[in-house]
Amino acid sequence: MTERPVAENAQLALLLEVSGTPKPGNVDREREYDDLRFEHFMAGAVGARSGLDRAAEGDPIGPAFETAIEGMAGQSGGNTQFGALLVLTPLVATAADGRLSPSGADAVVRETTVEDAAAFYRAFEHVDVAVDDPPDGLEPLDVRRGSGAIPELREREMTLFDVMESSADVDGVAAEWVSGFERVFEASERLLDGSGPVADRASDVFLELLAAEPDTFVVTRQDRETAEEVQERAQAVLDGDEDATNLAEEFVRRDINPGTTADIVAGALFVALERGLDV
Amino acid sequence: MTERPVAENAQLALLLEVSGTPKPGNVDREREYDDLRFEHFMAGAVGARSGLDRAAEGDPIGPAFETAIEGMAGQSGGNTQFGALLVLTPLVATAADGRLSPSGADAVVRETTVEDAAAFYRAFEHVDVAVDDPPDGLEPLDVRRGSGAIPELREREMTLFDVMESSADVDGVAAEWVSGFERVFEASERLLDGSGPVADRASDVFLELLAAEPDTFVVTRQDRETAEEVQERAQAVLDGDEDATNLAEEFVRRDINPGTTADIVAGALFVALERGLDV
Repeated sequence: MTERPVAENAQLALLLEVSGTPKPGNVDREREYDDLRFEHFMAGAVGARSGLDRAAEGDPIGPAFETAIEGMAGQSGGNTQFGALLVLTPLVATAADGRLSPSGADAVVRETTVEDAAAFYRAFEHVDVAVDDPPDGLEPLDVRRGSGAIPELREREMTLFDVMESSADVDGVAAEWVSGFERVFEASERLLDGSGPVADRASDVFLELLAAEPDTFVVTRQDRETAEEVQERAQAVLDGDEDATNLAEEFVRRDINPGTTADIVAGALFVALERGLDV
Repeated sequence: MTERPVAENAQLALLLEVSGTPKPGNVDREREYDDLRFEHFMAGAVGARSGLDRAAEGDPIGPAFETAIEGMAGQSGGNTQFGALLVLTPLVATAADGRLSPSGADAVVRETTVEDAAAFYRAFEHVDVAVDDPPDGLEPLDVRRGSGAIPELREREMTLFDVMESSADVDGVAAEWVSGFERVFEASERLLDGSGPVADRASDVFLELLAAEPDTFVVTRQDRETAEEVQERAQAVLDGDEDATNLAEEFVRRDINPGTTADIVAGALFVALERGLDV
């Protein structure tokens, strides 16, 4: 068996992430929403491939990400993997460059430019992403302005790393960008240490991550109180006090999707695949 | 939403095929074997992409197929999508050439060469495929000989179409090759006429195809009697006399996988996607 190319491991990570079940609140192999279905995630992963290929070929991270998002958005379910691709794109670039480690990834994201930031903003024009209002003073950089914010980015000379840094305290993916993808690399170790079907391990690691920190996507779409409840309930599952499948069904009913945690699992699956996780 | 490129539709067809549930006897979203899991089909679809890309770019069908199989085989579950790729590769070439119809596909497969046949034989070296002993007189062309059979192919000037013709009476995929992909195109119409999640439609069409003809992969791995039982039981599900999920569990227990029928569904999903099936 030959080694799987970097972009293929990234595409496979997207597919394995959504295949893990149960993953309370998120679409998985056994649960979906009427308008956001398992098949939309399949199509999103298929469409993202060309952008992942660009990142693996050494193209700048911002344009590669924008291409991935444009392709991911070519299905009718809406936003399926925006955050996961924001985690994966720099990791793909890092792996293709032969330096897949926290410090390697940190170096790669710190090398991003204002042009990468511009492409990141353009990516928001391809798909609706749930985001909060920006903090005071950052209204001109509201991502919902899309390319309309690019002159302001240039004016302030903000790189994509700078953009991530500005929201690291409220967004779990941005927090990964500025911490050497700490949670991603840690979770990848747990995937590698596990045994049995990879999809089951992904579901286990998802629960552990969910119990460890409030999911910022839940904070954005609902509120901090709900995110804290989600965290506690995930811990209850780990403690054996609550059933994961029942919790999954309740969260789907309440439309609670801990999407940021899923994004981190996708990144962890990619790192683990690159480090020899066998599928 | 821009149109999805041909190779992406083919990759998506592979993913949607395995996502349909229940599909009695085959791996699907809710049922798998210990050594042949859902995740192996994900990885097979990821690995096959480079071969599908070749077919879409106009490379000859045989080498494109061999590349797809080599990539598909890069996972630890063994043969996941050999037959499906044998259906998809000529259809991708036909679609990329702008003539996706039974007569267009028929013309494409009749244009195959001895070199395409040689590549088809080489493909068997990448993965173990369950096949029957060849008929009397065709021992030198036993596919299990892999590239060892190539001199004999050249001696007899057999094209890949000729190879398919020689087994069309015992292999359901070969039968498609020599009939303008009749069952594939018919099933694609039923997918397009249906409504609701595409994965559910794929499962419905799978059952209809299974009830219509004995699955040749079941004939090969078990026997004709079992294949006829499978056909009758599928009809019983359609008639409401048997439960699809129970049947799926029984077939998995008995290791009965109607793989040829799944291959035809994959082809039908591709044709339907090319003709506007919305995912």
